[in-house]
Amino acid sequence: MRILVKISYQGSNFLGFQIQQHGRTVQQQFEKILKRMHKRHVRIHPSSRTDRGVHAIEQYFHFDTELNIAPDKWQYAMNSALPDDIYVNEVSIVDENFHCRYDCVGKRYRYKVYQGAHRDVFMSGLKTYYRDDLDIEKMNEAAQYFIGTHDFTGFCSQKTEVESKERTLYQSEIIKTENGFDYIVTGSGFLYNMVRVLVAFLIEVGKGKRQPEDVPKLLEAKDRKQVPFTAPAEGLYLEKIYLAPEELVNDFGSDIKIHRKKSLEND
Amino acid sequence: MRILVKISYQGSNFLGFQIQQHGRTVQQQFEKILKRMHKRHVRIHPSSRTDRGVHAIEQYFHFDTELNIAPDKWQYAMNSALPDDIYVNEVSIVDENFHCRYDCVGKRYRYKVYQGAHRDVFMSGLKTYYRDDLDIEKMNEAAQYFIGTHDFTGFCSQKTEVESKERTLYQSEIIKTENGFDYIVTGSGFLYNMVRVLVAFLIEVGKGKRQPEDVPKLLEAKDRKQVPFTAPAEGLYLEKIYLAPEELVNDFGSDIKIHRKKSLEND
Repeated sequence: MRILVKISYQGSNFLGFQIQQHGRTVQQQFEKILKRMHKRHVRIHPSSRTDRGVHAIEQYFHFDTELNIAPDKWQYAMNSALPDDIYVNEVSIVDENFHCRYDCVGKRYRYKVYQGAHRDVFMSGLKTYYRDDLDIEKMNEAAQYFIGTHDFTGFCSQKTEVESKERTLYQSEIIKTENGFDYIVTGSGFLYNMVRVLVAFLIEVGKGKRQPEDVPKLLEAKDRKQVPFTAPAEGLYLEKIYLAPEELVNDFGSDIKIHRKKSLEND
Repeated sequence: MRILVKISYQGSNFLGFQIQQHGRTVQQQFEKILKRMHKRHVRIHPSSRTDRGVHAIEQYFHFDTELNIAPDKWQYAMNSALPDDIYVNEVSIVDENFHCRYDCVGKRYRYKVYQGAHRDVFMSGLKTYYRDDLDIEKMNEAAQYFIGTHDFTGFCSQKTEVESKERTLYQSEIIKTENGFDYIVTGSGFLYNMVRVLVAFLIEVGKGKRQPEDVPKLLEAKDRKQVPFTAPAEGLYLEKIYLAPEELVNDFGSDIKIHRKKSLEND
């Protein structure tokens, strides 16, 4: 039986999602609980492997089990054993052909920045601080240029190991918040560090060091050296996972380009 | 020259204020910076030694220096070197007779609780979660009973090592918040774990397991076994330090009882 689990986590005190030799990870927390319940190792498969310090408002994973436990009992059992920076929001039984990674057709991220004359210690780990004034309108103008299908080679970590660096963004916008802004980006998938590189670039635009019109030629250049910064992980939230093309069509219309995964891609 | 420093910190990732053999503390972070600047050890003296996991919206410490640095330069130097869960809000030069601990005539704490059907991972370390419904009015009624001068032996850790366990509370109230409540308490001083014991007791009142009218006899009993619970540290915030009797009179009127410290008391 395949079980699908919808979770949230506060990433500050995790080395990321994926299990590591040493240190606290989200995968480790769940596999420890599942091992205790199954008396054997049970592997979990997430939709997205978030990095150290990155949060998830919505994330999914699945696992296979022979235990006959009702979904709400799974939820209760896991929440009772989890630390208070991870929470299971929902559990359901899915078809054995369903796969959290391969069936994921899109993701939305939100990056939170707060501004002001003083750092706020209670935002530590939750939002990124930028003291300087930023031109939010210019940033939003630049953000729009990323919508559509592009090769994002110039806007991801050079460590990215995937065949194609072409991704489709359905949404890319800056919205003002009470004390700063959020960058919201929805796409078919994201390359390693891609959202954090986009945010760092948009902040350069906000400072007036880059122009919105620079985007097309930087995409064309496919050269990370021309886009050298990466925003810190603490402001980054995985906000939504699209597990079916219909959900994307619902949000962005029927004429969008949908990417279906065929291979084990690293995103 | 004696320097007074007003700070905030997010307590989640500290073992508390006071320096320890091993582990990260607030005192250690500042003394490391001051040692680098002075080329010798410089001891700092706080108004309050908060416990592991406890936050400070406002806390003070002082230290003595021979360095001739302007207050705003001290602030800049410290903030540049501090991690992002501590912040220096203000620096001033004070009289050499001033002492952060002995001149502290009162403190205010705030304890934050959120409620609801689900845990919120983004409140982890910042607010305490209670799922059950609570009778906030009953809790507030009970809270009022603590105002005034009482022996709080029954409402503190049995490890408390001070001569007198008499303290005066000027304010003790529960206020409803968007998704829970805050307990706000201002007093001449607080015994070890006292606020967390008060909160745990008030929650018992909220659940209907205790009555507001129980307070006078529990104060009278001076027996911690009758008040056995302690609320977790994560919801506790040191909110204000009163460094002069006039400030207390300003907030609570001229007929209040003011306690001045004479000895090295542990609160």
